[in-house]
Amino acid sequence: MNRQALPSPGTPIAQVDTPALVIDLDAMQRNLAAMALYASERRMRLRPHAKMHKSATIAKLQIEAGAVGVCVQKLSEAEALAALGVADIFISNEIVDPAKLDRFAVLAGQIRLALAVDSALGVERLASALKARGAHADVFVEIDVGQGRCGVAPTAAGQLAHLVVSHGLHFAGLQAYHGKAQHLRNAAEREAALRHAVALVRAAQAGITRAGIACPLVTGAGTGSFVHETESGLYAELQCGSYLFMDRDYADNEPTPRAPRFEHALFVKSQVMSRGASHAVVDAGHKSHAIDSGLPAVWQRELEFANGGDEHGVLRPRGDQGVAALPELGETIWLVPGHCDPTVNLHDHYVVVRGGLADGVVEAVWPVDTRGHVT
Amino acid sequence: MNRQALPSPGTPIAQVDTPALVIDLDAMQRNLAAMALYASERRMRLRPHAKMHKSATIAKLQIEAGAVGVCVQKLSEAEALAALGVADIFISNEIVDPAKLDRFAVLAGQIRLALAVDSALGVERLASALKARGAHADVFVEIDVGQGRCGVAPTAAGQLAHLVVSHGLHFAGLQAYHGKAQHLRNAAEREAALRHAVALVRAAQAGITRAGIACPLVTGAGTGSFVHETESGLYAELQCGSYLFMDRDYADNEPTPRAPRFEHALFVKSQVMSRGASHAVVDAGHKSHAIDSGLPAVWQRELEFANGGDEHGVLRPRGDQGVAALPELGETIWLVPGHCDPTVNLHDHYVVVRGGLADGVVEAVWPVDTRGHVT
Repeated sequence: MNRQALPSPGTPIAQVDTPALVIDLDAMQRNLAAMALYASERRMRLRPHAKMHKSATIAKLQIEAGAVGVCVQKLSEAEALAALGVADIFISNEIVDPAKLDRFAVLAGQIRLALAVDSALGVERLASALKARGAHADVFVEIDVGQGRCGVAPTAAGQLAHLVVSHGLHFAGLQAYHGKAQHLRNAAEREAALRHAVALVRAAQAGITRAGIACPLVTGAGTGSFVHETESGLYAELQCGSYLFMDRDYADNEPTPRAPRFEHALFVKSQVMSRGASHAVVDAGHKSHAIDSGLPAVWQRELEFANGGDEHGVLRPRGDQGVAALPELGETIWLVPGHCDPTVNLHDHYVVVRGGLADGVVEAVWPVDTRGHVT
Repeated sequence: MNRQALPSPGTPIAQVDTPALVIDLDAMQRNLAAMALYASERRMRLRPHAKMHKSATIAKLQIEAGAVGVCVQKLSEAEALAALGVADIFISNEIVDPAKLDRFAVLAGQIRLALAVDSALGVERLASALKARGAHADVFVEIDVGQGRCGVAPTAAGQLAHLVVSHGLHFAGLQAYHGKAQHLRNAAEREAALRHAVALVRAAQAGITRAGIACPLVTGAGTGSFVHETESGLYAELQCGSYLFMDRDYADNEPTPRAPRFEHALFVKSQVMSRGASHAVVDAGHKSHAIDSGLPAVWQRELEFANGGDEHGVLRPRGDQGVAALPELGETIWLVPGHCDPTVNLHDHYVVVRGGLADGVVEAVWPVDTRGHVT
């Protein structure tokens, strides 16, 4: 219903209407290659999180570059990506609703599909749903390694793995993701948090062994911590997502030693639509970028972004230049989102640009295929 | 692409998949009627803000109940609502981009359309665009009455109104909205902020009179403050939006004396998908509800909602019950969003329920027509 036409390939980026969600394709491809190389050199499986980019096009680029498949958080994401040709998906999350588990079982009959469990009820209902549809899936026991959200205590992993096996399900390993650790600013603190997580994984593995069960795989890790999971010797699969776009929040972290460097590749193009004596206002607010991990950074300008509400951002000068740093009415301002995942989820399309933000041209428009797929 | 079918009319709300954005239609209709009555009894024009509900269906219900039209913040919202039959729209915001102003002029040839201006450049470009299309529009001069965002200083209103008139445009009055005042918790503080705003409006009007121009209308006001604008004797049009759904944030305000009482009418239906010893986890995170005005409240349960990330919410007991208050796996939990506008913008559809949240049935599914219309 939005009658504004999407930009055609070849359109100069300067002519793209604002606000727009823009991928710097050159930067994204360098990030894609850097992570693929990191994983392959260390013989780690890479299963990037598609909850971040929500795009079948990007998922396929990752798989072409060596990823074994993708993760998602929601069944509706898996259904949509599968319909678009992504054939190996891990829902790294729990489902306990019987109607949803029936849909899961249908999908499991069509692609290679996996799910996390953290309750006896979840295991029982999953087993019933798969049996009713004659389908198979990989089942990961999720353990809480410090996030304080889903997952059983590591000491309970053996018992739950046993329940998985005793229901005739395929126990595929441990889901052990420490989301909170990703955002610790200090590299030593992140390393300490992951050392603790790895100890918990080891304890869970011991419990599974005591239950007489083999643990085929430990999967987890995010962009803020994957070096530690890789070097633990326990994890064999990385779920990093944000490396591809690098939001402001990850870039604010003290770099992890031995990690590849990733560049910002996702931007919101905005425009100054009001100009006061001491501030300017752009046409992008928190309906254009998520603010759960803080406000966007203004790209390569001496400007501070202040929250102007749903549809506005207020820019104020910082540094020595004073108000001379303020942009003029109509000027383009590039924003680096604080958090990529929920920012992407606000938009229906990516405008994909080749040749840089200043002089680049639109190479493609990619749909955000699983935008709003929260069920 | 989300293959999950939308619920059909008659479906018990208990069977609706989660997370879902749900309107309690009985409560919404009471809110709709209460505001319509308030405005009509005081001979105030009501032009509700459709940036909140983003729905042509709801805009038409408001107009049927007496509203003169709606406000929006973005041209693409106006284009979409106009295409769906909403024929009187005020874009209560500035546009300075020439390509966008040309689209504005095209739309102005089709419906009654208005725009705010706060710069000479904006006036000049608007005049050129309308002239090129042979179209007419209402032009409001926006003044800053305390928001610190868009709008000229009240002392500059006369000069800008003069520029509007001298370009052959129709000067329709003053846009004077104080967004920040809406969220002051204390009723006396809100009243003081609005007293200041009203004084600034009076100063702006005096400047316009001195410029020899009539000021036909002052428009503004939100759900947190409209009693004061109404009682000022200066405002003749109210732009309230949130009254219809009443988010958690407005309900947290100390009530304004002489204001009608509005009820919560917008909810996110969620479900417990993980359960620990001291907490439960629901399947709704900040991809299902906006958190710019704080976290959602848990409806009619002794539970505190903690941020669990994009796709999760963590529930902890509060009050005397302790962990006995925690819900079981699979239980439905109703969330009252902190801020309606950006919460609605996350969803493609409203599930509209008649008969209450406990036992109600789906009466309709309404599209969120201008979801993601940020341009």
